[in-house]
Amino acid sequence: MNHRIVIQIIGKLMQLAGIFLLLPTIAGVLFGEKEFFVLASTAAAAIVIGGVLRLVKADKQRIRAREGFIITAVTWLLFSLIGAIPFFASGAIPSYTDAVFETASGFTTTGASILLNVEAMPKCLLLWRSFTHWIGGMGILVFMLAFVPSNVDEMNIMKAESPGPSVEKMVPKVRETAFILYAIYTALTLCLIIILIIAGMPIFDSICVSFGTAGTGGFGIKGDSIASYSHACQNIITVGMLMFGVNFNFYYLIIMKKFKNLIHCEEVYVYLGIFVVATALVSFGIYNGSLLDAVHHAAFQVSSIMTTTGFATVDFHTWMNMPKGILVLIMFSGACAGSTGGGLKVSRVILYFKQVVREILSYTHPSSVKAIKLDGKAVNKDTLRTTNVFLMAYLLIYVVSFVLISFDDFDLITTFTSVAATMNNIGPGLGVVGPAGNYAAYSILAKWTLIFDMIAGRLELFPVLILFSVGTWRRK
Amino acid sequence: MNHRIVIQIIGKLMQLAGIFLLLPTIAGVLFGEKEFFVLASTAAAAIVIGGVLRLVKADKQRIRAREGFIITAVTWLLFSLIGAIPFFASGAIPSYTDAVFETASGFTTTGASILLNVEAMPKCLLLWRSFTHWIGGMGILVFMLAFVPSNVDEMNIMKAESPGPSVEKMVPKVRETAFILYAIYTALTLCLIIILIIAGMPIFDSICVSFGTAGTGGFGIKGDSIASYSHACQNIITVGMLMFGVNFNFYYLIIMKKFKNLIHCEEVYVYLGIFVVATALVSFGIYNGSLLDAVHHAAFQVSSIMTTTGFATVDFHTWMNMPKGILVLIMFSGACAGSTGGGLKVSRVILYFKQVVREILSYTHPSSVKAIKLDGKAVNKDTLRTTNVFLMAYLLIYVVSFVLISFDDFDLITTFTSVAATMNNIGPGLGVVGPAGNYAAYSILAKWTLIFDMIAGRLELFPVLILFSVGTWRRK
Repeated sequence: MNHRIVIQIIGKLMQLAGIFLLLPTIAGVLFGEKEFFVLASTAAAAIVIGGVLRLVKADKQRIRAREGFIITAVTWLLFSLIGAIPFFASGAIPSYTDAVFETASGFTTTGASILLNVEAMPKCLLLWRSFTHWIGGMGILVFMLAFVPSNVDEMNIMKAESPGPSVEKMVPKVRETAFILYAIYTALTLCLIIILIIAGMPIFDSICVSFGTAGTGGFGIKGDSIASYSHACQNIITVGMLMFGVNFNFYYLIIMKKFKNLIHCEEVYVYLGIFVVATALVSFGIYNGSLLDAVHHAAFQVSSIMTTTGFATVDFHTWMNMPKGILVLIMFSGACAGSTGGGLKVSRVILYFKQVVREILSYTHPSSVKAIKLDGKAVNKDTLRTTNVFLMAYLLIYVVSFVLISFDDFDLITTFTSVAATMNNIGPGLGVVGPAGNYAAYSILAKWTLIFDMIAGRLELFPVLILFSVGTWRRK
Repeated sequence: MNHRIVIQIIGKLMQLAGIFLLLPTIAGVLFGEKEFFVLASTAAAAIVIGGVLRLVKADKQRIRAREGFIITAVTWLLFSLIGAIPFFASGAIPSYTDAVFETASGFTTTGASILLNVEAMPKCLLLWRSFTHWIGGMGILVFMLAFVPSNVDEMNIMKAESPGPSVEKMVPKVRETAFILYAIYTALTLCLIIILIIAGMPIFDSICVSFGTAGTGGFGIKGDSIASYSHACQNIITVGMLMFGVNFNFYYLIIMKKFKNLIHCEEVYVYLGIFVVATALVSFGIYNGSLLDAVHHAAFQVSSIMTTTGFATVDFHTWMNMPKGILVLIMFSGACAGSTGGGLKVSRVILYFKQVVREILSYTHPSSVKAIKLDGKAVNKDTLRTTNVFLMAYLLIYVVSFVLISFDDFDLITTFTSVAATMNNIGPGLGVVGPAGNYAAYSILAKWTLIFDMIAGRLELFPVLILFSVGTWRRK
């Protein structure tokens, strides 16, 4: 491995962490909260240490798949460890494990919380907590590619951090693609903040909730998540979550007025189809006299779980079996590739389904078996292979995590959905970790397992898995 | 599709069903039970109708993969429908859906029951119920290949019914392979019956329990499954179940004294490894003062679930979270390919694991990536493809079944494990369908869904799935 280039880039990224910390620092000053000091100190330390690491000279500037993976995995771990310092040092979260859990949950846009009383947290730290969602949503390294100049070919970094079976570059240059992604992301987030303010939500709440929606994160700043806001605000958030779960390429096509190409956005239509069917089934399952009410809550919860956001307007743990079962299933399908959402991704689900259909046809129409297409294009062999192996790696991590977590003697539903809710970057599960509960009661072993799952899920497994391969660390 | 050859062979198989029914008929006569009459009548009807179907003349004698699949799927459905008649017509099971559920559960070696009081059932029907396990364990069509002469190449029938990612012929001829399989199977079953009798189990119980063990079925003839037999008998059954979950090729190698080749039986060793690890974890989880007692019950339950038999010596639904979680996981891994056990099969799990490792190595050692081997042989591309698609099809059926079952408002654990316990041909799940419960309370829709899952699981999905393809039914 090319250690030097890895260290150099990680130094750059540590400085970025420091810069990100300036936003809550400024907020702390404005709100007159004493926690601004730990935020500022952490920022300063990150910028200085990052600067030292950047002094390492790299002869070779090549970043292969391996280095891309390592940089990505280490960066996400480091961001969680650094971002946790303000929570821990300010005393807001007394355990460092808990602070890392909360921060990793933020960056990975999971939204799983160990906080027993979120409303007691200082506002500047609440802002930082929600801001981590926004940063992690589109990606830390994508941000670096978009805004920090460099002369290295960084396609392999982009690949390692972008969600979905294959990376689609909107334009030939990686940096331009990254910039376009962040431009759309920022514009949509600003729109959402403004609309929520117009709908009557307080400004601070609008900003935090919008960060959580845009990153499909799900940290609320109230004890009851989104339940206490008006129905209008809840509906805006339903649509907002759904929009950030769409492949951003879709928006780029609209901006570029390539309306004809929109026909090929198969994944987006399947995604919306799943949303409609799941909402219908859940509405039916929770119907209790008022259809409007049933659809309202069904649409919100389905949008929230499917986009892997994790906001809630009701405690769905108390629902009947069928609607609850539907929520568990869409925990796994997740949102579109190339969106800020997590899960397996709808495009992978489509590819799995199409392979089953092709297999059946290979028996009944042996002569007419064709290549598998997605979004109108034939899917190449390598993509199909990695898509399939992804499922196996996913199940493997799931099983190991499940066993480790099961030593904490909660019920099986809690255990099962804890892993689902963290690996898919959702947040709330069912049972003890349901919308009305949290992850505080887990043991330290369980919490670190779930931290691992959150990061592995966000980075789509392999960047994290190769850390366990001895060969990765050889110099040659 | 070649309809004529399909009908002809199905006629042959219906006659076989009639012949199988003679065993419980004779038992009914010996026990002086009046139910012998319905058994005899059903047998006679099956033999006559089968004979009529055999009159259909087929011009082409070729059985392609498609025909092999159709014959297999239809046969298994027919056997369930025919085998249910004695239960229904005698009044022992008043609902025909329930009778089909019980019979399909028998032939597919699932062992899931709708009976509220098994001990009230006439002995000849209990024998028939357990005998279906024995027939289904090694396979109905494999039996036909072994004992009914024919001049058609029936490799595609063998393929369609045999469990595992690829069919290994012990000897070049299909019919000889089938005969060897049944010879080993019968010999081992007889040994088990004799050993159980020596250990003090009543003769009738020994026969029924041995049928259930050999087929890895799990129907008990007592209300508490195996709990009331002596510890010695329970230990014999633990070893018995484990032995019938081993790939029969392993025994063939021993018989042929090819001891050197035993080194390559990777699947068997992994299977035994999983057994040891799972038993250790479960023992640790249920330890309550007596280590011997913990290991005894852990080994029995692990062996029972892993081989997908489903016998129980304790109500494991009352266990703690971790040991219960381990049982749920080994519900899926299942037994070896080429055994009488169900589940995904250990060999598939190995192939999934190896593909993940290969993917990781492809990043860290790009130049040294090799073909995937199993049991010492390179696995060809087609086998790998079907193995992977199997996982997707499995999850697809799982999800659809889960949704259909969830309309019956049981808890999620019951719903989740009902599907797992039927698709993997185990029998008892957790919750309402736990070892102390049964499937009687499910709705008719749920029962038929689970009947489908049992047959789909036993036939490894595709023979059943292609029934849904329009192309299958075209004459061309």
